[in-house]
Amino acid sequence: MPRQFGGLWPALVTPFGANGKPDIAVVERLVDQFARDGLDGLYVTGSTGQWPLLTLPERQDIVAAAVRASAGRLPIMAHVGAVTTEDAVTLAKHAAKVGADAVSTVAPIYYPASADVVFEHYRCVGAATDLPLFVYHIDIAQKLSADPRQYTERLVALPNIAGLKMTSLDLYLFGLIRAYGGDRLQLFSGADEVLCHAVVSGSIGAIGTFYNLWGKSCKAAWMAMRAGKIDVARAFTLRFQTAIARVLAAGSTWTFLRQAMQQKYRIDIGMPRPPLGSQDKPWSDAEVAEIIALVDGNP
Amino acid sequence: MPRQFGGLWPALVTPFGANGKPDIAVVERLVDQFARDGLDGLYVTGSTGQWPLLTLPERQDIVAAAVRASAGRLPIMAHVGAVTTEDAVTLAKHAAKVGADAVSTVAPIYYPASADVVFEHYRCVGAATDLPLFVYHIDIAQKLSADPRQYTERLVALPNIAGLKMTSLDLYLFGLIRAYGGDRLQLFSGADEVLCHAVVSGSIGAIGTFYNLWGKSCKAAWMAMRAGKIDVARAFTLRFQTAIARVLAAGSTWTFLRQAMQQKYRIDIGMPRPPLGSQDKPWSDAEVAEIIALVDGNP
Amino acid sequence: MPRQFGGLWPALVTPFGANGKPDIAVVERLVDQFARDGLDGLYVTGSTGQWPLLTLPERQDIVAAAVRASAGRLPIMAHVGAVTTEDAVTLAKHAAKVGADAVSTVAPIYYPASADVVFEHYRCVGAATDLPLFVYHIDIAQKLSADPRQYTERLVALPNIAGLKMTSLDLYLFGLIRAYGGDRLQLFSGADEVLCHAVVSGSIGAIGTFYNLWGKSCKAAWMAMRAGKIDVARAFTLRFQTAIARVLAAGSTWTFLRQAMQQKYRIDIGMPRPPLGSQDKPWSDAEVAEIIALVDGNP
Amino acid sequence: MPRQFGGLWPALVTPFGANGKPDIAVVERLVDQFARDGLDGLYVTGSTGQWPLLTLPERQDIVAAAVRASAGRLPIMAHVGAVTTEDAVTLAKHAAKVGADAVSTVAPIYYPASADVVFEHYRCVGAATDLPLFVYHIDIAQKLSADPRQYTERLVALPNIAGLKMTSLDLYLFGLIRAYGGDRLQLFSGADEVLCHAVVSGSIGAIGTFYNLWGKSCKAAWMAMRAGKIDVARAFTLRFQTAIARVLAAGSTWTFLRQAMQQKYRIDIGMPRPPLGSQDKPWSDAEVAEIIALVDGNP
Repeated sequence: MPRQFGGLWPALVTPFGANGKPDIAVVERLVDQFARDGLDGLYVTGSTGQWPLLTLPERQDIVAAAVRASAGRLPIMAHVGAVTTEDAVTLAKHAAKVGADAVSTVAPIYYPASADVVFEHYRCVGAATDLPLFVYHIDIAQKLSADPRQYTERLVALPNIAGLKMTSLDLYLFGLIRAYGGDRLQLFSGADEVLCHAVVSGSIGAIGTFYNLWGKSCKAAWMAMRAGKIDVARAFTLRFQTAIARVLAAGSTWTFLRQAMQQKYRIDIGMPRPPLGSQDKPWSDAEVAEIIALVDGNP
Repeated sequence: MPRQFGGLWPALVTPFGANGKPDIAVVERLVDQFARDGLDGLYVTGSTGQWPLLTLPERQDIVAAAVRASAGRLPIMAHVGAVTTEDAVTLAKHAAKVGADAVSTVAPIYYPASADVVFEHYRCVGAATDLPLFVYHIDIAQKLSADPRQYTERLVALPNIAGLKMTSLDLYLFGLIRAYGGDRLQLFSGADEVLCHAVVSGSIGAIGTFYNLWGKSCKAAWMAMRAGKIDVARAFTLRFQTAIARVLAAGSTWTFLRQAMQQKYRIDIGMPRPPLGSQDKPWSDAEVAEIIALVDGNP
Repeated sequence: MPRQFGGLWPALVTPFGANGKPDIAVVERLVDQFARDGLDGLYVTGSTGQWPLLTLPERQDIVAAAVRASAGRLPIMAHVGAVTTEDAVTLAKHAAKVGADAVSTVAPIYYPASADVVFEHYRCVGAATDLPLFVYHIDIAQKLSADPRQYTERLVALPNIAGLKMTSLDLYLFGLIRAYGGDRLQLFSGADEVLCHAVVSGSIGAIGTFYNLWGKSCKAAWMAMRAGKIDVARAFTLRFQTAIARVLAAGSTWTFLRQAMQQKYRIDIGMPRPPLGSQDKPWSDAEVAEIIALVDGNP
Repeated sequence: MPRQFGGLWPALVTPFGANGKPDIAVVERLVDQFARDGLDGLYVTGSTGQWPLLTLPERQDIVAAAVRASAGRLPIMAHVGAVTTEDAVTLAKHAAKVGADAVSTVAPIYYPASADVVFEHYRCVGAATDLPLFVYHIDIAQKLSADPRQYTERLVALPNIAGLKMTSLDLYLFGLIRAYGGDRLQLFSGADEVLCHAVVSGSIGAIGTFYNLWGKSCKAAWMAMRAGKIDVARAFTLRFQTAIARVLAAGSTWTFLRQAMQQKYRIDIGMPRPPLGSQDKPWSDAEVAEIIALVDGNP
């Protein structure tokens, strides 16, 4: 049996310094913050962590720093997905070497790929190490899961497969994979908006962008949900979804996160690598504070 | 304040006789069955009720029969959506005259329609009677709700608006409409697959096809969910979603429902009007019994 | 061998009187106009002819009037597609009885339908009469043609099949059906925007909305294209596409057509049945004249 | 006025050696082959050239080799699109330095990007050198061109803009951009399937994958089309589209190209970098020969 994971995991943002490079010192501060906040794990160099814009050495440095800074307090799952299978395998081996607790990978990007091509890519990554593998399921432009039973069967046959990060609002598909996969698949919910709903489909935890900012509040809501406090979960969900909608509608998500994390943690994550964030506008401090409080409540 | 609705409502199937006409006697038996089962209301001549394949007089007969058979035991919501606005208005007035409790309408079909055209159509239906209006939201091929706040504002401004039947797996949109609309909108979940999940987004009940067959079990699961019995709701959800997937994958939904309702209620809903059901295959009695039991449990 | 059709065919608008009913006298005037303009046929009670908003008797009256008014000058293809297979068959038989030259049908609407259901619907319509059958191919939300070879094989096996009205911008699919179907399928282009391009994929003619207004000019361009006058066809295409874009962007297509046909033919097609056209705004006469001239050239 | 380009351009495949590295000697042989075949230019390190799987130095070597091997016989357009804006700018400057004739770039990939982000990315690439810029328009998952007039206006305002590679079957959009952009935009058709059709929308040439194999035949067909030989263009188009469909349906495009180019040119392009091609099956020599002849005719 693979190791059991679960709980509330930020998909760690990659902080950048003024020199345009990943800021490893800030990575370490973030890991420490989230460990002290009592969160349950970290998903590193994923989409929120901007993997497509990073070089391989940069990605390796970030994973190594997260493992080091965690010092066993939080399990570290390294997203090792890459454009070439070879790079993904290289990253997986490195993650194992530096002590990451699990690896994860997206499907091949850019070129349309058949299911056979996708699963061969997954297979190579899974077989590269002894670490548990979590496939990163994204439902945009992906027809792989049209037959959920067959999809689940192919997933459970992968070497070292432990579960999925399901980044999808589709809780019907989520539930079917949970039903067909049973205990063979640990399903993390990857769509922040349905953090609490996914519990009803058998999620064992959640991985997401906004847990960088609201990790403690989200963990509390998720635990309330698991404990059957539906009114608490519902009230939280409406506030959380509204906050997300307000941030996304403005088209300046990175500057929101940056300013909000500065206000809340006194940590500066800097600006990402263009084109990401290149047109982000600054927010007023008051609006940032108001949106933070919408989820966290007033202090 | 409009009347408050809620609970578990079958989207009533329209039963057909051997002569190819709607079978009013069977309509009455179904209504009686669902009232005795303790369900909470009926949605009549909707998509499950095959409105596009029925004539106006047929639709009026069915609504009148449902009201008559319910005799006040179950509120009756008449779906009056039609291709022409005039027909929808005619049906709404008839529904009011025969004593239906609410009306509902889909957006215009077949021709792509602007938001202005859609809302004018809704406005005419809402203004046609004093009955509460529930807009039937379908997310296929509909861009209306791209800005959920604006969409909600236009909805709450409709005459006699009371709520929505949200037939969508998107519980982020569901929650945003709930958050923006507050108590002004009563939201029924219309996607059977997420019956329990929708509670977390503030649903006041559910309307759906499969409640014709599994109404009592679904109501019990929904009440368990509301009472915070997450384990019960999760276990039910995985079984229910699996059963739905098994039925839909076979491409013979109508014959499944027909045979299952015969087994369970001794009521024959006949075969629908082609092209619906024209290629449905018969099921084995054993498989039907097995799928029924998957949701209801074994007797 | 079925009769050979071809050339430039308006998808006849259905004109309405002030009483909200189809105006048969105006139908006759339009048919006469298009016959005198030297156009090549008429497609009646299709989408432009607003079939979903018409009753069966209304549709029958319009087809009968078109046949009568044509008096053999223009072949009449009756679109008999309907929500129920039975209604489509009824309309097909009526079309044959009153002397139409061909029938056509869309796939079933509203409910998602399997390929088997769709082809059984087509089969019933084709078998209902001895008239040549033209399937009305729309590519929105239709997965039927994902395998173009298989799709073509099923089409050519239909009773009385003569061809397709291909309402799609996809000239790759168009060409594959032409290649696989060979002389067994006469392909009309149904997307006005690619009237001339479709000649390169083997179209035998075109059926469309805007030919109600610009039939003569479009026929001239189409003949130039067939004669290899590429420069003429290209210059026309850019003007025609620009005119279409200008009309569609305004969201008031019906009032444009109405005012333009009044200016050009002195024929009033009235206003359609709501919800169609319910929010159309009036155009300035000058702008209408300018757009007409963009395609027709200045007199 | 920017330099005028046009004609038939292969989107050069990137050949790989047995060591898994780009094979520069084969790049040179291919360039020489296409120059001697009388083709009109080369599009290098685009999607067919597998840019996302190559390192920056590899891309630079390929571009430099193409320029060198062409020795002025064929203009070289370097695709410099990259995940980061900085890399794209670096590649553009290198292309200028080594003597490429134009640069081209896709929109940012992986992350959904607003129009502002996309155009800032284009702007940086255009401003990086004095070379003419061709935007690589792909219509998958891209809402940028929903308003074609506005899209065209933003395009023509870019620094050094010369045109577009329009990789889309939508010849309505193609024509509108041609009409709005006039002589300010040189439009290459990038969808092989509509090579001839695009002439009617004002294409000045075509860039595509299959011209690596069938460049001479495609150029002859394209010139026949421009000369008004519609029957020749139509017959060719049906054969060419059928050949493409046959190759794509097999899901082994790369091995087809490899074996076909071996048969035809005695040049081995090797196997691409996985995941691309990882599940490609070998073809029979007879089938490859048959498909080659379908387009080229029998020798």
